Amino acid sequence: MNPNKQLLLKKRPVGLPDKDTWELNTIPVQEPGDGEFLVQCEYISLDPAMRGWLNDAKSYIPPVQINEVMRAGGVGKIIKSNNTDFKEGDFVYGQTGVQQYVITDGKGFHAIYPDLAPLPMYLGTLGMTGMTAYFGILEVGELKEGDTVLVSGAAGAVGSVVGQIAKIKNCTVIGIAGGADKCNFLVEELGFDEAIDYKNDDVKVKLKEYFPKGIDVYFDNVGGEILDMALSRLAMHARIVICGAISQYNNTSMVKGPSNYLELLIKRASMKGMVVFDYEKDYGKASIQMGMWMREGKLKSREDIYVGIENFYETFLRLFTGDKLGKLVLKVNED
Amino acid sequence: MNPNKQLLLKKRPVGLPDKDTWELNTIPVQEPGDGEFLVQCEYISLDPAMRGWLNDAKSYIPPVQINEVMRAGGVGKIIKSNNTDFKEGDFVYGQTGVQQYVITDGKGFHAIYPDLAPLPMYLGTLGMTGMTAYFGILEVGELKEGDTVLVSGAAGAVGSVVGQIAKIKNCTVIGIAGGADKCNFLVEELGFDEAIDYKNDDVKVKLKEYFPKGIDVYFDNVGGEILDMALSRLAMHARIVICGAISQYNNTSMVKGPSNYLELLIKRASMKGMVVFDYEKDYGKASIQMGMWMREGKLKSREDIYVGIENFYETFLRLFTGDKLGKLVLKVNED
Repeated sequence: MNPNKQLLLKKRPVGLPDKDTWELNTIPVQEPGDGEFLVQCEYISLDPAMRGWLNDAKSYIPPVQINEVMRAGGVGKIIKSNNTDFKEGDFVYGQTGVQQYVITDGKGFHAIYPDLAPLPMYLGTLGMTGMTAYFGILEVGELKEGDTVLVSGAAGAVGSVVGQIAKIKNCTVIGIAGGADKCNFLVEELGFDEAIDYKNDDVKVKLKEYFPKGIDVYFDNVGGEILDMALSRLAMHARIVICGAISQYNNTSMVKGPSNYLELLIKRASMKGMVVFDYEKDYGKASIQMGMWMREGKLKSREDIYVGIENFYETFLRLFTGDKLGKLVLKVNED
Repeated sequence: MNPNKQLLLKKRPVGLPDKDTWELNTIPVQEPGDGEFLVQCEYISLDPAMRGWLNDAKSYIPPVQINEVMRAGGVGKIIKSNNTDFKEGDFVYGQTGVQQYVITDGKGFHAIYPDLAPLPMYLGTLGMTGMTAYFGILEVGELKEGDTVLVSGAAGAVGSVVGQIAKIKNCTVIGIAGGADKCNFLVEELGFDEAIDYKNDDVKVKLKEYFPKGIDVYFDNVGGEILDMALSRLAMHARIVICGAISQYNNTSMVKGPSNYLELLIKRASMKGMVVFDYEKDYGKASIQMGMWMREGKLKSREDIYVGIENFYETFLRLFTGDKLGKLVLKVNED
């Protein structure tokens, strides 16, 4: 049998992870036990939230332990099964970790269908990031037709779907992203009304221009200065969805709290946090709806795919440099 | 007729107001015009929110202008009326401003009844601060029976009522206040379960002790470090009511944003701002309920009354030094 290359967490990073954070390890592929099955991983998902899992801190999920395989969602093919619910040849999604093979009893795994959509899409628009966008904007953000919507990290896996769903719901949608290429992508490809380039535009001025009556829903993936600027531009009864804070994940000093939070009072607004796992029972419904929108051409999915488990570290950093477009995915299968 | 002593805003303060912020002015009392009436003010309300009205900044209410009478809620007696809805001898509540007499067309004024409750109580528990507490904890905080509740500024006009309402609703209630006297008052007089003295206790340690399963509702009147400590002790689906931020009102540097706001995400919690004016149509219902609770001895009202319009400045500062208990009221009538 093939060797199994896997990425182990070796050292908790301070600030941005470096080359010593992880180490590639090769072990022989094992045989699945009773009730277990063996998955050959094809693609794994790279997400900003993974940075949080490296910290030895209480959060919504326990941290990855030192010498443990790095946690990640992944998709792959079952190549051997002793589990009657999962049969050889089927494709599955689950917490595979960053490795080429995984043995599991099936807990948290579910079937996916490569004949309906390409595999990497099950890590993005039809996967966790798509679900995050769907429940985040519709349920946590309580989106209403005609709302004015601001999305940060708008060219990312979550933000790009959030903005498109808001357009489907007849909202005015402005995205914030870094660089002209991403901004063009948002407006030309995804149908956003306008895009703000935080690297080159005066964000404050643009927010004033694009939201003359204020922001009804702000979907925040970044935190930091942009959250503060959005707070100072809220409409009455605005809702802020706190989905992440990529600008703060590699801080070595304290997280920058939003100085303008008292705008919540002035505008009778709310700021609400979310974790997608809470909506698990409704993933099915959401997937069908997302699939229908994709078939109707209303929802576009964009994956940015890199190759090679040995390139995990460099690829992961693209999440924080912004050097990627849409859902970041790593192909770990060498076939 | 008597002279009308009134307090004019003369200079916008930077940080804590000083003696040059306001100036006492004396003018002759005027005659009410057609449809107007003349009120002799008895008591005026002193509230932390007044500090915000001094800043030349867009907020939920326009700032007080230079040379304008300082805005304040007040209660008084109608001594002359050309308005058929308000008759001589009646008592009213309204935005009288900090002065001894006011002429008004009655907009925003309503009758009060000194035979049912003492006049100052209409500025506190039966007035705006009581309404703030009522709607803040019950509607914005979505209080449920059995919740664990934390209140900051707990010995203040709003906080003391918030905590008592939460006790009436069978919640566990912990108050934060400054000094042993206030803490004793909360537990011994008002029936709070526990009190934390932020001037002498280790607040973080006490929060851990008193909220082993986390805080369900945090009613925040103070902001700053205490808001951050509460954020780090939330229960799942916790609700934070942002009612004020007295620790930040006299800042000369930027407001301290809550660094721990990402706990909202981890705990799927929300932070919501409120302004009491939004609930105006339901004030009547709330007043009746509050009155009933007071009659049943379940709700105690505490006013801290000072005398003399010329003492406004020193009395106002008590809001920020904390040197007062319950609702701060100034008697402006010299009779």
